[in-house]
Amino acid sequence: MKIDDLYAAKKRIQPYLAQTPLLLSSLLTKTLNQNIWLKLETQQLTGSFKTRPAFNNILMHLAKARAQGVIASSSGNFAQGVAYAARELNIKSMIVMTENTSLYKIERTKQLGAEVVLCGNSYEARHQTTDQLAKETGRLLLHAYDADETIAGDGTIGLEVSDALGETLNHEMAVLVPVSGGGLIAGIALALKTLHPHCRMIGVQPEKNGSLAAALQSGKCVPIGPVQTIADALVASMTGEKPFALIQKYVDDVVLVTEEEIELATQFLIEQHKLVVEPGGAVTIAALLAKKVLTKNCVCIISGGNIHLWAPLIIN
Amino acid sequence: MKIDDLYAAKKRIQPYLAQTPLLLSSLLTKTLNQNIWLKLETQQLTGSFKTRPAFNNILMHLAKARAQGVIASSSGNFAQGVAYAARELNIKSMIVMTENTSLYKIERTKQLGAEVVLCGNSYEARHQTTDQLAKETGRLLLHAYDADETIAGDGTIGLEVSDALGETLNHEMAVLVPVSGGGLIAGIALALKTLHPHCRMIGVQPEKNGSLAAALQSGKCVPIGPVQTIADALVASMTGEKPFALIQKYVDDVVLVTEEEIELATQFLIEQHKLVVEPGGAVTIAALLAKKVLTKNCVCIISGGNIHLWAPLIIN
Repeated sequence: MKIDDLYAAKKRIQPYLAQTPLLLSSLLTKTLNQNIWLKLETQQLTGSFKTRPAFNNILMHLAKARAQGVIASSSGNFAQGVAYAARELNIKSMIVMTENTSLYKIERTKQLGAEVVLCGNSYEARHQTTDQLAKETGRLLLHAYDADETIAGDGTIGLEVSDALGETLNHEMAVLVPVSGGGLIAGIALALKTLHPHCRMIGVQPEKNGSLAAALQSGKCVPIGPVQTIADALVASMTGEKPFALIQKYVDDVVLVTEEEIELATQFLIEQHKLVVEPGGAVTIAALLAKKVLTKNCVCIISGGNIHLWAPLIIN
Repeated sequence: MKIDDLYAAKKRIQPYLAQTPLLLSSLLTKTLNQNIWLKLETQQLTGSFKTRPAFNNILMHLAKARAQGVIASSSGNFAQGVAYAARELNIKSMIVMTENTSLYKIERTKQLGAEVVLCGNSYEARHQTTDQLAKETGRLLLHAYDADETIAGDGTIGLEVSDALGETLNHEMAVLVPVSGGGLIAGIALALKTLHPHCRMIGVQPEKNGSLAAALQSGKCVPIGPVQTIADALVASMTGEKPFALIQKYVDDVVLVTEEEIELATQFLIEQHKLVVEPGGAVTIAALLAKKVLTKNCVCIISGGNIHLWAPLIIN
């Protein structure tokens, strides 16, 4: 893959999706004495970055998608992205999710018009069921991270960060990206390391899913077994082969955060920063609040905000 | 008052406060088929715009504030703004709040170092207590809306909107502002109508507090009696005299929204738009969602986000 694939993806999805805002956070900058920018993918339609790869995937195979429909396996955010993109493009979508997926994500996926198939409780069962259903139905299979089309869609975020910050993306800048299967960081790293080779690219994973850390250590993608974390968007138990090739080339480091650090960061973002962010989207802030990344300047990718909140709308 | 007072305020508070973001909302633009920008004062330090007038007020009377301390009456957001500004400037603050103020706002005010005095349950009792305590203690009294210093601090929001949107602020643009005592809309209207005379300025109040609508109808500021609304930031039962003079000159219209419309807008912003906004900050969106303002382009001031949310951070 080359950066031209990302420019092509950008052009392809532009008619359907707006750019997301990049905020310089007064609160975090003051709290941590580092300049912190937030790339707010919570502001993308469906509340996460996943609409980008969903549109790019479908638009690259539109004839087959139209004829056969699409199918995807998802922990909940890719589900909504695919359902939304399919609905906008008049295509039928089927999404395979595990039975322990948050009801919030299942409901929103259904509301967007997808047919939801529930299967078992493990990441592995989900992928097996998806592969089987794809064969049986002939639907176009969209992979959440291990596909060039997906990585290129994800990478459009990197192009937007580059447009916004330009030369600030130098050796004093770290770009922090949540990691599950690795597609998001692979695409962003391809963009930013090509355009700004001196900035640092750092992946952040829950300690309870150190799949990329393990892959980097052993030099190959290995399944790490069942994953359970409050960061329910980051449960891929193995790094994808395609992202891994880019990650080995472009990513400088992987940082692990504990469940407590993720919970604290999520609460901080909601209660203090007034931003609705789900735990998986808050891991980059978890790494900063835990002082695990100490560069002068940081961009944090806030990848999603699909969490159910309860607001007591009563006086007092 | 003149726009030069706003430029002076901007220069005065700049060392302490950052600009807030102005987002073009993909979701609202798509939902309503109007171009909707959100001026996110939820991103101001303390979660509302009130730090602006707090700093401007104190900095204009720094010697007295240092010698005597400050006192203010507030429904909760000005309280936090004053407490924060006072703490940053090493000044003692006392805040008078009613006993039915949200615990969330009382606690945050205390956490910022203010001495909180609770008194009765009415807006009138709060102001009487404040005036009496100001006399007894000799503290500098900061008014939440009926003071030039406050209006000038509020008006810095208008200058930022002008910088960001420039010539887009023409006859096709409506600027929607939440209204309680009128200080916020007075300051913003002074800025924007001076710089862009053809844009429309629209105030939004809860139906349960139509104090400005009543004042505009009768031509004078009159108390409308006890106010109770889920928009707990918008409970001033009478428009201030100083804001009213500017409002009569510069504001085009006032729109009223029901409790149900406010609740719906608040839930929409939190659940769909992934922005933590309190009911008082959501009234502008309530007016739009209820199709009460139909211009091609709109800027909505999202004035605050101090609401207690409960996030169930458990896996499913």
